[in-house]
Amino acid sequence: MTFHTMWAELLPIGRSSASGGYRRFAWTAADSECRAWFEEQARSRGLAHEVDRNGNQWAWLGDPAAGDAVVTGSHLDSVPDGGAFDGPLGVVSSFAALDELRARGVEFRRPLAVVNFGDEEGARFGLACVGSRLAAGQLTREQAHRLTDGDGVTLAQAMEAAGHDPDAIGPDPERLGRIGAFVELHIEQGRALDLSGDPVGVASAIWPHGRWRFDFRGEANHAGTTRLVDRRDPMLPYAETVLAARREAALAGAVATFGKIAVEPNGVNAIPSLVRGWLDSRAADQESLDTVLSGIEKAAREHAEAHGVDLDVVRESFTPVVEFDHVLRDELARILGRGQERGLTVPVLGTGAGHDAGILSGTVPTAMLFVRNPTGVSHSPAEDAAEEDCVAGVSALADVLEGLVCR
Amino acid sequence: MTFHTMWAELLPIGRSSASGGYRRFAWTAADSECRAWFEEQARSRGLAHEVDRNGNQWAWLGDPAAGDAVVTGSHLDSVPDGGAFDGPLGVVSSFAALDELRARGVEFRRPLAVVNFGDEEGARFGLACVGSRLAAGQLTREQAHRLTDGDGVTLAQAMEAAGHDPDAIGPDPERLGRIGAFVELHIEQGRALDLSGDPVGVASAIWPHGRWRFDFRGEANHAGTTRLVDRRDPMLPYAETVLAARREAALAGAVATFGKIAVEPNGVNAIPSLVRGWLDSRAADQESLDTVLSGIEKAAREHAEAHGVDLDVVRESFTPVVEFDHVLRDELARILGRGQERGLTVPVLGTGAGHDAGILSGTVPTAMLFVRNPTGVSHSPAEDAAEEDCVAGVSALADVLEGLVCR
Repeated sequence: MTFHTMWAELLPIGRSSASGGYRRFAWTAADSECRAWFEEQARSRGLAHEVDRNGNQWAWLGDPAAGDAVVTGSHLDSVPDGGAFDGPLGVVSSFAALDELRARGVEFRRPLAVVNFGDEEGARFGLACVGSRLAAGQLTREQAHRLTDGDGVTLAQAMEAAGHDPDAIGPDPERLGRIGAFVELHIEQGRALDLSGDPVGVASAIWPHGRWRFDFRGEANHAGTTRLVDRRDPMLPYAETVLAARREAALAGAVATFGKIAVEPNGVNAIPSLVRGWLDSRAADQESLDTVLSGIEKAAREHAEAHGVDLDVVRESFTPVVEFDHVLRDELARILGRGQERGLTVPVLGTGAGHDAGILSGTVPTAMLFVRNPTGVSHSPAEDAAEEDCVAGVSALADVLEGLVCR
Repeated sequence: MTFHTMWAELLPIGRSSASGGYRRFAWTAADSECRAWFEEQARSRGLAHEVDRNGNQWAWLGDPAAGDAVVTGSHLDSVPDGGAFDGPLGVVSSFAALDELRARGVEFRRPLAVVNFGDEEGARFGLACVGSRLAAGQLTREQAHRLTDGDGVTLAQAMEAAGHDPDAIGPDPERLGRIGAFVELHIEQGRALDLSGDPVGVASAIWPHGRWRFDFRGEANHAGTTRLVDRRDPMLPYAETVLAARREAALAGAVATFGKIAVEPNGVNAIPSLVRGWLDSRAADQESLDTVLSGIEKAAREHAEAHGVDLDVVRESFTPVVEFDHVLRDELARILGRGQERGLTVPVLGTGAGHDAGILSGTVPTAMLFVRNPTGVSHSPAEDAAEEDCVAGVSALADVLEGLVCR
């Protein structure tokens, strides 16, 4: 099955005709369709398919128990109204690269697997990389069971409804211990490759990043009859905090975004009782991120107090800076360097986006390849990759995997 | 059936155990329960029950066709997580006042009806007073059919699902022409009566008020990888506009509130493509309201432009200042003035809240009574009324109705 056919099969799954974007959230019907597609890809290639205790899917060529395996893959879930490439490009490219290796007649000296990590985007339960975090022991079963979606459904309930045992989840050191190298190919989520004119790049590091929930609690009241001086309106300190986040990020050369909000009661003529805003912030180093955060929180507290509003700030997730494995990174550059004779340069770039590769990098030698995104847009249907760049990505991934499995 | 029994029957309907507030939205199951309760009240009193073409419920004593009827009532629906009194106090007090008149052995010289106006709060479809607006010809069938709730269900679909013919809706001049006087009793939505020490007051006027929708459209993108300078983040001009609304309202002695928001895609790590905020604003006179609005819109446009964000401002509803019928108001004051011999004063007060009485006042002589709310809080479970004030309200309403029906 060609790259094209695989891509065409995935395209309609979970696509919103209204937005043109994808809504493939963890443990939903769209997610199940993606998983069925993955299983069929494994089956049709004679790969052994398995779903691990944390809901991650694996397609194995060779004996997993032999150890020192080469693993490649990404994720199939999406953010709300996300683009088609973020995640699926890595999974489809992995199967296509495996096909390419077979076409080349490569002798596989190490086991090879394609993986689909579950719930990477965290769109439904608010925490990213749940599948890899659980496996790596960065999220406990108890913490995972407390995760709840916007409709009050717990992760455990959602897993169970999708036929997965929620009591089975937890650290999976034996499985991760069998992996000698993990390589994730991903669409670039910025414009670095577009600006440098390269179809493919290698990752250097992932910026430290986190998510914080700001709960502003005031008092619900009638918007028409309550005097301004009698109000405890949480929308006002929220608005001040949104603006403070932009200011602090600009000062530090970082990014800070309030992109998600929940308001209660959310009525046109009701002063809110609660405005809950989620902050996503990332910076090149820990010190800058700390500075940004403390500046935002200070502003939030001052304005909340001025309006008689209570404020709770909860850090919902945090990932320190991730430097990818230098040995593996150099190996990738060496392998891809052969391509330089054909005029292919291999830029090495940092990224503000989190990935399962970042989670695994604490346990397993890990590397990432990026494919050029001419719009630089991510988490939106405007995300894009040219066909020839996807082909270049598959080719680069095949080169890397060949270099690794033949070692 | 006593006031207490009626009150106790209504209390559990549509109550959220989570918030302690009410979710009685138009054409939902909770709404149907309230309507069934109303019909049973009519039946048990031998009143003729009817539902008009616009879904308003009537309970008639005497012949409606005789004309010059005295009508009293309010609404049973609620804002999201509203209090128990806003609406139901008027309906329950109406039935209780009718019982009181019968107990007094009053001779009814005019037809008398209790009414429950449908969809007063506009919580589901965003437009307040839909039942009375339709009847009074202030909302066309075509406009009503375009109303849509947060799940994309149209008003017509919701009506039909609840067993009401959506094609039957429209102006009802014959029905309104039979009404000689409409009196609505309502819990006060501010602290004027609490501050003056009076259990009951008479309304003078309703402030001009309206709802405007601000659609800020930017570009969805990845919150971690998109440089600040490349962003078109609609949350930023929204936040500026929230703060501008507060400033402009304070300057004009008016009120302005952003209490409802819808964000797309509303993901923690996605810059929004759309931030839609609803503004509710009211002022003592039209000129002040115009000044507030133009100030807010000017700020919104400036900040939207600065962030490369498109802005549409749509006026979703508007009600000019309503001066209640002076003849009827003086009659109420005269009738209630008898009570002054017993030390009962009758303050006359304006209000920032809209009511069906405000809609009808263009067609029918209309008056309102307010009952003291010691918290001054409205559209929240903290809304309250003391039992003795509810009794005083029923007694005042009975006096008013007796004065009118015996005329």
